[in-house]
Amino acid sequence: MNLAMIEAAAARLAGHARVTPLLHAPLLDARFGKRVLVKAECLQVTGSFKFRGAWAAVSALPEGTRGVLAYSSGNHGQGVALAAARHGLPSVVVMPADAPEVKIANTRAYGAEVVLYDRAAQDRDALGAALCAERGLVLVKPFDDPEVIAGQGTVGLEIAEQARAAGVEAGDVLVCCGGGGLSAGIALALEARAPGLRLRTVEPAGFDDMARSLAAGERLRNARASGSVCDAILTPAPGELTFPVLQRLAGAGIAVSDDQALEAMALAFTHLRIVLEPGGAVALAAALFTPTSDPVICVASGGNADAVVFRDALARFG
Amino acid sequence: MNLAMIEAAAARLAGHARVTPLLHAPLLDARFGKRVLVKAECLQVTGSFKFRGAWAAVSALPEGTRGVLAYSSGNHGQGVALAAARHGLPSVVVMPADAPEVKIANTRAYGAEVVLYDRAAQDRDALGAALCAERGLVLVKPFDDPEVIAGQGTVGLEIAEQARAAGVEAGDVLVCCGGGGLSAGIALALEARAPGLRLRTVEPAGFDDMARSLAAGERLRNARASGSVCDAILTPAPGELTFPVLQRLAGAGIAVSDDQALEAMALAFTHLRIVLEPGGAVALAAALFTPTSDPVICVASGGNADAVVFRDALARFG
Repeated sequence: MNLAMIEAAAARLAGHARVTPLLHAPLLDARFGKRVLVKAECLQVTGSFKFRGAWAAVSALPEGTRGVLAYSSGNHGQGVALAAARHGLPSVVVMPADAPEVKIANTRAYGAEVVLYDRAAQDRDALGAALCAERGLVLVKPFDDPEVIAGQGTVGLEIAEQARAAGVEAGDVLVCCGGGGLSAGIALALEARAPGLRLRTVEPAGFDDMARSLAAGERLRNARASGSVCDAILTPAPGELTFPVLQRLAGAGIAVSDDQALEAMALAFTHLRIVLEPGGAVALAAALFTPTSDPVICVASGGNADAVVFRDALARFG
Repeated sequence: MNLAMIEAAAARLAGHARVTPLLHAPLLDARFGKRVLVKAECLQVTGSFKFRGAWAAVSALPEGTRGVLAYSSGNHGQGVALAAARHGLPSVVVMPADAPEVKIANTRAYGAEVVLYDRAAQDRDALGAALCAERGLVLVKPFDDPEVIAGQGTVGLEIAEQARAAGVEAGDVLVCCGGGGLSAGIALALEARAPGLRLRTVEPAGFDDMARSLAAGERLRNARASGSVCDAILTPAPGELTFPVLQRLAGAGIAVSDDQALEAMALAFTHLRIVLEPGGAVALAAALFTPTSDPVICVASGGNADAVVFRDALARFG
């Protein structure tokens, strides 16, 4: 991956993905005593940055591709489904049978065939591999793919430009981190376009595999696979491609609690008037509740919030 | 008011107000069977379009102005407070003593001196006039002022450009309407810049003074002063300056129910990931629940939602 790939992805995304705004709120800044700039990827098409990587990957497929397949219980599947549909390609999204009804329905509505599997009894990878072989589909990975990373890196190109326009040339850029595709892409873009900005990953406490891996100098796994409200960013371990990029370019990783993520959702509701899901709010939580640079930039990576979770966040912290 | 005033206001607003995005959501379009484009003014600084008019008015004041005064229980006061503070001017916002605590606190946090009055016992206008005389303050009206209308008209300049970029040259532009400042400003901008787009006002049922006035050809008053959840847009009658503009340029007005506004808030949460207050959601409600052009553009005018009201909207319609 390099800047040229990110720029090429940006050219393919133009007119299809949205240039999302870099928001700020005077009263939020006053309350927390620092200048906080929020890259609102929740306003991206399909509600998360995942559409960028999906579009970059699908638009880079060779002529004659018969269709794509993705594993996802959430945002990646929706991004791939819509990107494929807009390219006139069929898509299959393999989802756990116990995924929320609304996510299954939405993935179908974006145009995908949803294939459900039983998490306990079935091997997801074997099921997907069989479907790919049988139908000639191409797998679109959620993060460990150069084109996907390049697509997510377009967020970094926009941050570099918008930060400069806001007079910010140096400081921390906090990014919600699962497998590290968004973080690696942004880090590569900032290295070339805004070298004074330093990327730092943000994860839920207990699922901070990237922060621990960066500190240890080797890829470490999480002890658990579930158990945080930040479902969108719970991945077992850093990616093979993403980790070396972040090892070279990222600062120390940050972990925040579920309650801090929920409080950040409520603060984004009040002060920024955007909807964040818990996993999409951890970077804002880190900006507000942990020591950072001032000014600080954070990426609000997704807004596909469950209504019940959102109501609870407002009831507790609104 | 004319295009030149709106363009001049836009030049003064540049770098201070935000160019808000024109959002859309594929699944919302699919569900309602038409293309719906949403101008997200809830993302404006201070959370509503009111900051534009306030900035336009304050930035047009002559040198030597000693300060400004506004009457407001909500968005206009916050806009004036911040615009004045950023111009280095003191501001006084006259608010009813029973206004929500958070709105009083926020208005103060933006830099205003808040003067509370008793709605039942005190004459607001007399109180304000005395303060203006005593301290040499200039009154910034909420809608019936040429500079304020010009400032709100900058929304129309942006819509004209963004609609064209989205391939939309003709159709309805639905706008949440209180006194008509935002509607009149947008109508003037569209007349000059996008003559195929036709403005239509949207009001809460029972408070549709503008729609009835447009139909009758004369300014009519609402029977009641309160009783809708859409508190931000309950004004007693069309403005003196705004009504003739809309009489000349607007199509038939639309009224929506409180429940339709609340359902639109829930749909904006799910599909657009923006926070709307009830009065800021009536134009989206009209786009979704009443007959309109296809495509249709609507202005989501404000996002300073009460957390309890928002939770209730999600519980009922999310």
